[in-house]
Amino acid sequence: MIDLVKNLAAVNRRTKASVIRELLKLTNKPEIISFAGGLPDPATFPAEIFADIAGDVLKNKSARALQYGPTEGMPELQEQILRMLREDEGIIVRPENILVTTASQQALDLVGKAFIDLLDPIIVELPSYIGGLQAFNAAGAKMIGVRGDDDGLLVDDLERRLHQLRDEEEHYKFVYIVPDFQNPSGVTLSEERRRKVVRLAEMYHVLVLEDSPYRAIRFEGKDPHMLFKLGRLGNTVSLFTFSKTLAPSLRLGFVVGHENIIRRLAVLKQSMDLCTSPLCQLLASEFLARGHYRPHVEHLRRLYKTKKEAMVDALARYMPEGEGISWTKPEGGLFLWVRLPEYMNTDELFYEAVKENVAYVIGSAFHCDGSGHNTMRLNFSYPTAEQIDEGIKRLAKVVKANLRKGKPRPAVLAR
Amino acid sequence: MIDLVKNLAAVNRRTKASVIRELLKLTNKPEIISFAGGLPDPATFPAEIFADIAGDVLKNKSARALQYGPTEGMPELQEQILRMLREDEGIIVRPENILVTTASQQALDLVGKAFIDLLDPIIVELPSYIGGLQAFNAAGAKMIGVRGDDDGLLVDDLERRLHQLRDEEEHYKFVYIVPDFQNPSGVTLSEERRRKVVRLAEMYHVLVLEDSPYRAIRFEGKDPHMLFKLGRLGNTVSLFTFSKTLAPSLRLGFVVGHENIIRRLAVLKQSMDLCTSPLCQLLASEFLARGHYRPHVEHLRRLYKTKKEAMVDALARYMPEGEGISWTKPEGGLFLWVRLPEYMNTDELFYEAVKENVAYVIGSAFHCDGSGHNTMRLNFSYPTAEQIDEGIKRLAKVVKANLRKGKPRPAVLAR
Repeated sequence: MIDLVKNLAAVNRRTKASVIRELLKLTNKPEIISFAGGLPDPATFPAEIFADIAGDVLKNKSARALQYGPTEGMPELQEQILRMLREDEGIIVRPENILVTTASQQALDLVGKAFIDLLDPIIVELPSYIGGLQAFNAAGAKMIGVRGDDDGLLVDDLERRLHQLRDEEEHYKFVYIVPDFQNPSGVTLSEERRRKVVRLAEMYHVLVLEDSPYRAIRFEGKDPHMLFKLGRLGNTVSLFTFSKTLAPSLRLGFVVGHENIIRRLAVLKQSMDLCTSPLCQLLASEFLARGHYRPHVEHLRRLYKTKKEAMVDALARYMPEGEGISWTKPEGGLFLWVRLPEYMNTDELFYEAVKENVAYVIGSAFHCDGSGHNTMRLNFSYPTAEQIDEGIKRLAKVVKANLRKGKPRPAVLAR
Repeated sequence: MIDLVKNLAAVNRRTKASVIRELLKLTNKPEIISFAGGLPDPATFPAEIFADIAGDVLKNKSARALQYGPTEGMPELQEQILRMLREDEGIIVRPENILVTTASQQALDLVGKAFIDLLDPIIVELPSYIGGLQAFNAAGAKMIGVRGDDDGLLVDDLERRLHQLRDEEEHYKFVYIVPDFQNPSGVTLSEERRRKVVRLAEMYHVLVLEDSPYRAIRFEGKDPHMLFKLGRLGNTVSLFTFSKTLAPSLRLGFVVGHENIIRRLAVLKQSMDLCTSPLCQLLASEFLARGHYRPHVEHLRRLYKTKKEAMVDALARYMPEGEGISWTKPEGGLFLWVRLPEYMNTDELFYEAVKENVAYVIGSAFHCDGSGHNTMRLNFSYPTAEQIDEGIKRLAKVVKANLRKGKPRPAVLAR
């Protein structure tokens, strides 16, 4: 056996297994109601439509559907993407501005590898999407966290950080933001702050990496503009995915950005997987071309809205509000975020929750600085409304059992 | 616009676009007969079977077929893989020894990223698979080339190199070998040399990375044992793909290795694309479970054998043999290799060939040390027998026009 301790790459030794996936292993028992995943509701999968399309594509286009394809993506899908961006976001770009990816996770990996040298600083949100943190960690990034509130990232804090990095002559690479119904917090960045973010990007010559997997799934309120729409072409790279709107299994997403950046990412992608499955691309492009996308997304919105409401209602019903306990009320997406009193530690509570047959993701997993020990992420897209009610009841029981009466004391008495 | 010169990662600036893909752009005209690709013959794609299976899978298993799946792979596919390894190769391993990948290119990228720190030496063949060189280059490797002959890698040269690296206290990481019908040369590593390679791996505590995408496509002769079968579990990692046997578009392959190595690769894969498409995995596992694999591969073997023979016959008919001109006669796979006189440069000949409406891949692209300027790779799986005959005729015309009479002179007179 070769000596792995000696032979593994240094940067690889930094890569830890996703906390979510490790914890999920504890929650595989059928009696557990899990709010820990991030899965779409499989009842929404348009399986029959895909079966029809697969039959047609494999009958009429098999020579292309089963062959290798261009690294940049199949022209049919690019055409649909350009139309979608134009109609839904008012974003007008050309095929050279688009790279089809093996879903968003590959795009995060690509951007990380393309820009980050070992210990280059990047700015991420506190909390931030765990898959992004993993990809940037694998690329060797030094992550600097900036906090948010119910209107998203605190842009004045962002400015202070950028100023400091510039003063220190640091080689800072990008600001990573999930602006719409953020994973994990469910919060949306306000229009005013978006405008400030793009101004800062220009002032500090820094790339904004906009990751927006849930944007299509808004069930109330109004969309602020995308950062890509507000910013300059060469200062923003935006990531999209079909995982939440069509099906995760297609492993299909895309990056939009300046053509020089897209070209770089395409060369890197070539060495990573040559191309994204042409079969999956044609399934998606036909789904869009045949007009199934809008009614399907409408259906998703209605369903997830009822589930979100079920969760917010259950929290109001069972969870002791006040005393340092609060939660977000997202206008879209798949997740909401619970804050507990400072003295509670959701890492420890997790095992009590599993004993009560309910699971969540510990908040600290989303914090690059190890903070967030009193927070948790709850998913409402996967469980049924009945499971949501029962699960929140169980979770509230655990929280109540750990409440301290009177004034909260600090969690750690001696330091 | 951000400053790309300043902001791109150093290692990313080392990554160049695949020469094959750049040259392919010149060969898109319909009048060109191209031996430059590496594509399976689309007439072999089992499209109807896949259409049937897709219908069934999407009807009966849609909740799993369209959802996220485990990073390690779907249990159904793992089961089929274990059976295939046992029955075809006498290799007995457990699910923990297998990682399903988004085809072999991802596996090359994974192994590169897992083991290579910037400028760590690895050993590759001269010539070697260009996609491997790209992935290892992206990981920052210093590549050391070892030559081969018609029995594959020169193992005494390999030993000398390993000895030297050990003496120099270099942090050498692995030996990359494509042992069966190599891409690009079509050569197979002999059984005797295989045994020596695994002995060297143990002596020098070095990993052997065995990449065998064409092994199932042997149309004559007998299989030597896989390096994985001959070597120790912890000293060999082997890469397989369904791209050449089922369809490239499934983007489906797998890695076999020690469970500690597989676990590491799985953690890295998680940060790269979370999982390989469950839909594509179920299409493949059902194809295998229903018994389509063996007859389909038999069909491929017969077809590619006739194409290989058409190419070897055409070379014998048109190409001036002797005078420093020779070619390999592969017993399987998709490619053969032509050596021209030392004074010829296939980089330059390429443009003349394109004028004659025939294309190949320049040999230098497969050499990490920039050598191989008098060689070229020809693909026989994609063109028809008629195109092969006509294309080789055109190619021979170009070669003949560049032949020097009498004793060959050096190509470059002044240095």
